[in-house]
Amino acid sequence: MLILGIDPGLERIGYGLVSREGSTLKPVEYGLIESPRIVLPDRLKLIDGQVKALIERYHPDEVATERQLFAANKTTALDVAKALGVILLTCGQHNLPWAEYTPPQIKLAVVGNGAADKKQVQYMVTKLLGLAQTPKPDDVADALAVAICHAFCSRVKVPL
Amino acid sequence: MLILGIDPGLERIGYGLVSREGSTLKPVEYGLIESPRIVLPDRLKLIDGQVKALIERYHPDEVATERQLFAANKTTALDVAKALGVILLTCGQHNLPWAEYTPPQIKLAVVGNGAADKKQVQYMVTKLLGLAQTPKPDDVADALAVAICHAFCSRVKVPL
Repeated sequence: MLILGIDPGLERIGYGLVSREGSTLKPVEYGLIESPRIVLPDRLKLIDGQVKALIERYHPDEVATERQLFAANKTTALDVAKALGVILLTCGQHNLPWAEYTPPQIKLAVVGNGAADKKQVQYMVTKLLGLAQTPKPDDVADALAVAICHAFCSRVKVPL
Repeated sequence: MLILGIDPGLERIGYGLVSREGSTLKPVEYGLIESPRIVLPDRLKLIDGQVKALIERYHPDEVATERQLFAANKTTALDVAKALGVILLTCGQHNLPWAEYTPPQIKLAVVGNGAADKKQVQYMVTKLLGLAQTPKPDDVADALAVAICHAFCSRVKVPL
């Protein structure tokens, strides 16, 4: 099974594709979807194109996203939600089962401690996927962490 | 010029198409885009299909949306933003210029008073568009109000 993990954002969206065969996890691809500061409809169109290209290239079986928490900047939170809406639309259009997890759920699944810090999560992501070095930037490590979390505890919301 | 006004929502999205010829405003079509409580990716797909159908049927020249304010329920606000993201994506895909207005801006444009109440806005929407009765529900009147506001004070964010 191939899982696409997403760390939502507007300027930078982290993604990580992780395959699970039995209890073995393997990293397939990971990186960032970036968008310049242009008017929002065009920005969302750019994000949509990149997400669709990723899904059409790798054909993930399921998608997992980190649940958005409220940042200090509410306008930013709403814009990140708009970009996430565009990503979830693509999931719907491709009939991809989707699940979301809160940061404590992800930390608990990946580290075994729901209050783990960023460094501990990154250490375990690197170790569990057998990577030579910690994925950078943080958005990418976070996307791989949510994919691993989903691999460990699939709780998919089945589409129509 | 044909303006599509949108009152963002998830369960119910109000829309109103208003044509402006010189200083004359005419209602072209208005109503609700509704979605059932199914998993979010499928729900967004339903909304996307209805918005696209509306745009492809009426070919508006510009789109105006009411800027989202934070409701008491933050999760609802984020889900409304996701649906709005899907609508704005369609604007981008159709190269439709888009503008957004805050509730006080809309009230000021429609009633002449940025602190007007809902009834006053609905009265002026009905009067300005020459309607026999007040458009219902509130989401529809709000969508027509933002279209009228845009007709009076176009401040379009030009796409790429």
